[in-house]
Amino acid sequence: MRTLLVIGIGAGNPEHMTVQAIAALNRADVLFVPDKGSDKSDLSALRHEICDRFVTNPASRRVGFAVPKRAEPASSYRSTVDDWHEDIAGIYETLILNEISEDGCAAFLIWGDPMLYDSALRILERVRQRGNVDFIVEVIPGITAIQSLCASHRIALNRIGEPVLITTGRRLAAEGMPGNAGTVVVMLDGNCAFRTVKDKDVTIHWGAYLGTPDEIVISGRLREVEDTIMGTRTEARAAKGWIMDTYLLRKPGESEE
Amino acid sequence: MRTLLVIGIGAGNPEHMTVQAIAALNRADVLFVPDKGSDKSDLSALRHEICDRFVTNPASRRVGFAVPKRAEPASSYRSTVDDWHEDIAGIYETLILNEISEDGCAAFLIWGDPMLYDSALRILERVRQRGNVDFIVEVIPGITAIQSLCASHRIALNRIGEPVLITTGRRLAAEGMPGNAGTVVVMLDGNCAFRTVKDKDVTIHWGAYLGTPDEIVISGRLREVEDTIMGTRTEARAAKGWIMDTYLLRKPGESEE
Ligand SMILES: C[S@@+](CC[C@H](N)C(=O)[O-])C[C@H]1O[C@@H](n2cnc3c(N)ncnc32)[C@H](O)[C@@H]1O
Ligand SMILES: C[S@@+](CC[C@H](N)C(=O)[O-])C[C@H]1O[C@@H](n2cnc3c(N)ncnc32)[C@H](O)[C@@H]1O
Repeated sequence: MRTLLVIGIGAGNPEHMTVQAIAALNRADVLFVPDKGSDKSDLSALRHEICDRFVTNPASRRVGFAVPKRAEPASSYRSTVDDWHEDIAGIYETLILNEISEDGCAAFLIWGDPMLYDSALRILERVRQRGNVDFIVEVIPGITAIQSLCASHRIALNRIGEPVLITTGRRLAAEGMPGNAGTVVVMLDGNCAFRTVKDKDVTIHWGAYLGTPDEIVISGRLREVEDTIMGTRTEARAAKGWIMDTYLLRKPGESEE
Repeated sequence: MRTLLVIGIGAGNPEHMTVQAIAALNRADVLFVPDKGSDKSDLSALRHEICDRFVTNPASRRVGFAVPKRAEPASSYRSTVDDWHEDIAGIYETLILNEISEDGCAAFLIWGDPMLYDSALRILERVRQRGNVDFIVEVIPGITAIQSLCASHRIALNRIGEPVLITTGRRLAAEGMPGNAGTVVVMLDGNCAFRTVKDKDVTIHWGAYLGTPDEIVISGRLREVEDTIMGTRTEARAAKGWIMDTYLLRKPGESEE
């Protein structure tokens, strides 16, 4: 039986690799390293940097593969995602069949933690259901962008004993601040959805390129910092050609600090 | 100026230590290791195991300290927490003043990640505000129980593009399943609040002692597994004297896998 290691590599800082992730990288005969196109080649570079630094197994090979672009949302978001995942499932299947021996072991390097807004596990489940190849999956957690954000801001995610909602820019813009959580973490936001939040007394803790040498963090009340964040974001994105940012919003309330 | 490193050590598996956390442990002159009393001495043992395995700095000292017990909730949850934190702040202040030289560096070993349902950062902020000692804080993230849970179950935290609520047993019991998230993660639940969920078609992914050799995981529809989880939990807790468990609840919906 083939073994597939789905390894969280952290969200930007190679020092966020765990002992378990390093051991897993070195168990694999083959390392699958996605290449999402030239605009995010920094991300691809970081994956290679991690391999260069931590892989000591002389028998291991790196196999790059292109990830197809997702189609623009047509009828529904779900159906474009569905087609896209089906395409990637085909690519994974080919990699698994062609690059790993029948009792071999391969690793997928996953940005952050595979559990968080990542589809590798779901796509591997599709591959299994296609029925052309069987395998065992092992998941190795990694430090997420949320953890980098909180560490850089030196803040707790939650207020004492209170809930936290993790959501996307799309959902924040559509639904506003939730009634059942005083803290919201927003990911996958290409449109600065924090601007749609009505209560400008909300505190934002924002971070871009977290964990990397280019890290930028800004925090304050929305009314005081939202323009700064917008401007900083636009500039940084123009300079580098891409941006990845995450932020936490906290409703005004009793100060705990 | 004194430096305090607040280091996430993972939630049970020493292999979840990151490269950054190991380096931080070795920068410290003093390691503060809490001892929460004999019933959870396994946790204390794990902290010492981590020090034994990863600390190579011959100059470093370990200083244990007792964490006072929290009073039973009296008037309000917040006020007992407040008194409790004030007590711990006094202990931290004494440790910082007595155990670290004026330009020295100490580490606090924090279970999981310091951002998640942990008060070390808030308590250090209190110590700062008491004004008797000044210091710099650095936060090093660690793998949380949520990540261990998802890795062991080989599942994604979120449905595609959908929100996730992280909450406590107390809040789940009081508020039920949220309307704005298809997935809920429940921590700090001493009372099996999942039994209060009305929709028995909800899927539960449950885990206790995650990441440790005693790890137990169970998953299925609530109607099928809730009694098994209850029974397993009661037995395990009786056998070991303590239990720590976390679970994820997912509303029934289109299967994605
Ligand atoms: C597809 S999700 C993957 C998340 C990843 N699995 C994790 O655990 O962090 C990508 C989103 O994560 C966030 N993100 C990932 N890395 C980041 C970084 N270094 N700095 C800021 N945000 C980041 C951004 O919100 C981005 O839109
Ligand atoms: C005070 S919180 C601390 C959480 C920790 N900071 C983290 O990052 O996981 C303690 C709660 O975390 C969860 N937990 C921590 N370690 C766990 C483990 N090894 N297995 C299961 N649950 C755990 C339980 O829900 C427990 O009630």
